[in-house]
Amino acid sequence: MKKVALEVSYDGTNYAGFQRQNHQSSIQGELERALSQIAKVPVTVVGAGRTDAGVHALGQVVHFTTELNIPIEKWPLALKSFLPEDIIVRRAFAVGDDFHARYDAIGKRYRYQIDRGAVPHIFHRRFSYHYPYPLDLKKMRDAASHFVGTHDFSAFCASGSSVEDKVRTIYGITIEEDDVLLKIDLHGNGFLYNMVRIIVGTLLEVGIGKKEPAEIAEIIASKDRKRAGITVPPQGLILLKVEYPEHTLQID
Amino acid sequence: MKKVALEVSYDGTNYAGFQRQNHQSSIQGELERALSQIAKVPVTVVGAGRTDAGVHALGQVVHFTTELNIPIEKWPLALKSFLPEDIIVRRAFAVGDDFHARYDAIGKRYRYQIDRGAVPHIFHRRFSYHYPYPLDLKKMRDAASHFVGTHDFSAFCASGSSVEDKVRTIYGITIEEDDVLLKIDLHGNGFLYNMVRIIVGTLLEVGIGKKEPAEIAEIIASKDRKRAGITVPPQGLILLKVEYPEHTLQID
Repeated sequence: MKKVALEVSYDGTNYAGFQRQNHQSSIQGELERALSQIAKVPVTVVGAGRTDAGVHALGQVVHFTTELNIPIEKWPLALKSFLPEDIIVRRAFAVGDDFHARYDAIGKRYRYQIDRGAVPHIFHRRFSYHYPYPLDLKKMRDAASHFVGTHDFSAFCASGSSVEDKVRTIYGITIEEDDVLLKIDLHGNGFLYNMVRIIVGTLLEVGIGKKEPAEIAEIIASKDRKRAGITVPPQGLILLKVEYPEHTLQID
Repeated sequence: MKKVALEVSYDGTNYAGFQRQNHQSSIQGELERALSQIAKVPVTVVGAGRTDAGVHALGQVVHFTTELNIPIEKWPLALKSFLPEDIIVRRAFAVGDDFHARYDAIGKRYRYQIDRGAVPHIFHRRFSYHYPYPLDLKKMRDAASHFVGTHDFSAFCASGSSVEDKVRTIYGITIEEDDVLLKIDLHGNGFLYNMVRIIVGTLLEVGIGKKEPAEIAEIIASKDRKRAGITVPPQGLILLKVEYPEHTLQID
């Protein structure tokens, strides 16, 4: 048996999320169907993170085991003819027997895209949240800096999450303008359920003057979900990259 | 009767082109259906250019006449609820009785996008041509400069075109890299049928070394379609902007 990891990109618009569902299409379901067709036996796929319905990925990572002797670099092309056009395998890696896409991940990078144009941009509409209101970017960047570091992010986790330990480390948040798009990039060791979307919702409330940057520390300390901002919609969110220890998997 | 011009953007992926068709959906057909629903009488729309099946637009311009007293700035929102999500009206302009979207146009700007990544980029796949081969951009830019000026572009017009006068002026062609995308921008007073796509196909043949920049002048002079390059596929092509004399229509 060989273990293979795949770097997978997808347009999440038409999926109920990453995780396999009984009666709805999912990224995991499509990957498993394609791999099972190639292998002619059922194949199970493990993903680094379960992206929600409508959320996209450039660099999701999954692993699976196989008896097949396909050269590692041939996997992306082999899968292409079995996958729908909105799921694209970018690269494949031969990994050790003990590799685990989720447990071995040490960092994740997410981007949230906001379309600030007066009307939605035709090319960005599937991958951004249209929010055409004036934003104070200076204040948003100031607010973003208060998230950096190791905190209990209970206030930024969707209620109902079963995760016990809500301490996470955010390494950095950057906010860049690119034409009509505002790109908010978050880098951390892991993110709670809806955490990126609630942080972005809170940053937008700072941007429109509803909250002050200085309040962020208090909101984090409160551990109260109701103190944070709204959960922004899924279509602006992209899982850019999953990071692993060096030599586990070379994804530059 | 009032005359109204609209700046319209669309994702052409799911359309048989701009022009109204009997049994297939078209941009013109969708606009006319939406306007007729609002006006409660049949409305005819005239476009600046007939983009082909699969070709996109950021700034197509159309005009129509109406008895309705909708304030001019309300038209984009009024149309939003009657149009599919892949056709977005960006702006509306009150124009003079003699304005004509096609006959009054004095310039057009097109962009052709090439995805040079090893595998197609998930976000660009609807709006680019995946061409992952090494390209000599210096030679391509040299070749592009030979198109600039006033020429008979018969060699760069799809056979079967009924246009008599094939003389057009190209004001400029620029080739810029933007991450994995190569953006080829063409500005001219007008373009023949498939002219942009044949010019780009010819530039790609220069990029891979199949043609030399110095051949471009000869190919133009030959007026022979067979001497030029292939017609690249439609999904990379975008009508960026239609230009009119000052004060006709302010589209900055």
